[in-house]
Amino acid sequence: MSNYNPRETRLLSFHDAVDRFRDGSDSPRAYLERCLERIEAREPEIRAFVTMNVTGAREAADASAARYRVGKPLSAVDGMPVGIKDLYETIDMPTQMGSPIFAGWQGKRDAASVYALRQSGAVILGKTVTTEFGFYSPGPTRNPFDPKRTPGGSSSGSAAAVGAGFVPVAIGSQVVGSLIRPASYCGNYGFKPSLGALNRQGGHSGLSQACIGVHAGNLRDLWTTAHRIASIAGGDPGQPGLFGDAVLSPPVMPARLIRLDTAGWALCNPEVQAKLDEAFSRLVKQGVEIVSRKTDPAVEAFEVLLREAREMTHTICGYELRWPLKPYRELGPGSLSEDLGNRLKSWEHLTTEEYRTALARRDEIRKISAGLLSRASGFVTLSASGAAPLGIQNTGDPAFAVPGSLLGAPCLSLPLLEAERLPLGLQLIGPLHGDARLMGHAAWIADHL
Amino acid sequence: MSNYNPRETRLLSFHDAVDRFRDGSDSPRAYLERCLERIEAREPEIRAFVTMNVTGAREAADASAARYRVGKPLSAVDGMPVGIKDLYETIDMPTQMGSPIFAGWQGKRDAASVYALRQSGAVILGKTVTTEFGFYSPGPTRNPFDPKRTPGGSSSGSAAAVGAGFVPVAIGSQVVGSLIRPASYCGNYGFKPSLGALNRQGGHSGLSQACIGVHAGNLRDLWTTAHRIASIAGGDPGQPGLFGDAVLSPPVMPARLIRLDTAGWALCNPEVQAKLDEAFSRLVKQGVEIVSRKTDPAVEAFEVLLREAREMTHTICGYELRWPLKPYRELGPGSLSEDLGNRLKSWEHLTTEEYRTALARRDEIRKISAGLLSRASGFVTLSASGAAPLGIQNTGDPAFAVPGSLLGAPCLSLPLLEAERLPLGLQLIGPLHGDARLMGHAAWIADHL
Repeated sequence: MSNYNPRETRLLSFHDAVDRFRDGSDSPRAYLERCLERIEAREPEIRAFVTMNVTGAREAADASAARYRVGKPLSAVDGMPVGIKDLYETIDMPTQMGSPIFAGWQGKRDAASVYALRQSGAVILGKTVTTEFGFYSPGPTRNPFDPKRTPGGSSSGSAAAVGAGFVPVAIGSQVVGSLIRPASYCGNYGFKPSLGALNRQGGHSGLSQACIGVHAGNLRDLWTTAHRIASIAGGDPGQPGLFGDAVLSPPVMPARLIRLDTAGWALCNPEVQAKLDEAFSRLVKQGVEIVSRKTDPAVEAFEVLLREAREMTHTICGYELRWPLKPYRELGPGSLSEDLGNRLKSWEHLTTEEYRTALARRDEIRKISAGLLSRASGFVTLSASGAAPLGIQNTGDPAFAVPGSLLGAPCLSLPLLEAERLPLGLQLIGPLHGDARLMGHAAWIADHL
Repeated sequence: MSNYNPRETRLLSFHDAVDRFRDGSDSPRAYLERCLERIEAREPEIRAFVTMNVTGAREAADASAARYRVGKPLSAVDGMPVGIKDLYETIDMPTQMGSPIFAGWQGKRDAASVYALRQSGAVILGKTVTTEFGFYSPGPTRNPFDPKRTPGGSSSGSAAAVGAGFVPVAIGSQVVGSLIRPASYCGNYGFKPSLGALNRQGGHSGLSQACIGVHAGNLRDLWTTAHRIASIAGGDPGQPGLFGDAVLSPPVMPARLIRLDTAGWALCNPEVQAKLDEAFSRLVKQGVEIVSRKTDPAVEAFEVLLREAREMTHTICGYELRWPLKPYRELGPGSLSEDLGNRLKSWEHLTTEEYRTALARRDEIRKISAGLLSRASGFVTLSASGAAPLGIQNTGDPAFAVPGSLLGAPCLSLPLLEAERLPLGLQLIGPLHGDARLMGHAAWIADHL
């Protein structure tokens, strides 16, 4: 068993190194080599990566070093080693999506996010393990804090790679709970932005709730990465993209936060419930007003609405997944995992009418959420129902991530709690397009919790 | 020169054949063979197809025939030969997108629309020529009514294949004017549905205005095809899909129509302007009230707004196209055509602020349009500024299609007019999600004009 202390982690910081790159006491190549040393030591056990392009990464790091030497880095992420979830295309590595259908498949371009990072000088080191098409069936990745446990999923490899200190930043994605949950289990900062804020094109990411996001060792690297993607690649087509400055918001005390239990609360053991209660007590002592279902009938009504969130999510995602999963199933036995095949069967009965009703209900809940957040800085809840479960056959329960995904809201997992001496995330959920402000509140909470 | 008469066309009808399939006096295989005869005779000149799978089509037609023999066709399109614009993936044929980058590229699935049609028993005969990625640089296709002229683009092959009577139906798509204009030039029925109403996934179709649509020889085949796609594959993720019954709406006289001149009017010669004036006179005689900029200040104000439409469209599409075109450009000289490369250069200066402003303005114009259409059955204008231009280096001007695309509105091109003894489409534009009702009005207009 690990002896996890959120204050003493192995997480990497990148922005700290930039001054050293500038004065020549360190270099992007040396930074990369340190990453590679850690990877060499632990990757055989952790298995965060599906593919690595070490040669390409070294070349990119050397090119970056040359830019720093002449004082002309391309951006604040120039020289930063990054892992890319294997749902997103890379011109120099296959994109295999955790599926035998795409074994060895090579796309013809970098995904929008990857392109943006490369244009910014980032060092694309490798592709990280995803569950099958970002859904259920897990890959071989293990939790860096306890290899007997799951890293969570679907962004399993990205969360584990950052949690293990292999890379300072990795790209993940979330439709239901694929980023916030593994960030919680792997003790790193996870950011699912506002729906559509970061361009998710160039990969398997068609669902209406799908977001590309970031795992990082700290908020500054996280925000800088997200901001670079948005600056170069924009948001999803038709969306206004990410709002906020290039520089991370300074810490801002949230005047008022709304505590959400969500349907996840019932899954938590008393130890975990106590951790969240304690966290709120500490925030109250610092002067933050906390409202909850116990103190505010509007919050109670919202909690009741959220009971529908999971079924609504299943209706929406199940309907949207029939294509492409049905054509994939026709490729023959074994094309889809048994689990995904069974789920697909359960989705076939869904009608367009049920789907439309769920979409309308989702819109309604989004409006109610916006109303609540007009009177508070954000929702606060857990990122997962506890520490990473034992075993790697199951990536854990997404209950705590379901509401933020449904709302299309910006969500942040902060590695500030622990359970069973393992990481547990505190989750902040902000209003749509309030990503930058949410970062400021997160920074304050990280300083004061 | 052709001697085009809109009342005597070579367009194919499919629904007429179904009774004969049922009574055994005809069969899907025989229908297909008749298509293949026409294709053999004229395809060397017209060049509508990039790829054909004749063997696969014959097998599918035979399977369909067997279903009719036992009285169990899968749907109203069972046995219908269809061409697919080569931007959309097919499991049995490459998808080459009019680009050397995708020469010979084979996707791993049928696009959502193709999957839906195959599931419905349709016979996927081949891939039709598209301009480069559905934008400017034309393919080798010629206009079936005058091979010295363009078929229009980007859905060049689909429009030409239906216009030439090669197939009764073909799938096209539109971002700006890629379906309505070629339907006009090639004398067929073209339908760009409400934004998001038909699932456009599985191809190169990421722009926020992109729609997949249908070319057909008549309204009934057109609507049945669209409805089958929506029934099986739904709309775009997050969209409610196509509204309306499986059966084409009966003809419904529109009580009130709004005449739009659009920026296209200035491009029309007096002969063409007179054709539209005459068409409105005939509608008025039949008892339809026509309002226009001359009679209604709100329409005049809308016409003034539409002057911005083209620039707004360029800003929105240009911003959204920087990815993936920039990564494609990096694949080396010749990856993009000179024309597209130059346009890409002109888009590089676009800022996120300009994009957001254009999106907001687009939303505003959509709201104003919805207001106008709450008091009328639809807008009516031309589908193109005249007959297909001479030469195949240029696919013609999309001016008349720009507004409907910007509005996200359902648009129909009806092959009811002629200019220079060649086809010219009358365009109907309806309110968002009013697709089915628009069909009913179109059927009435086709009967009465």
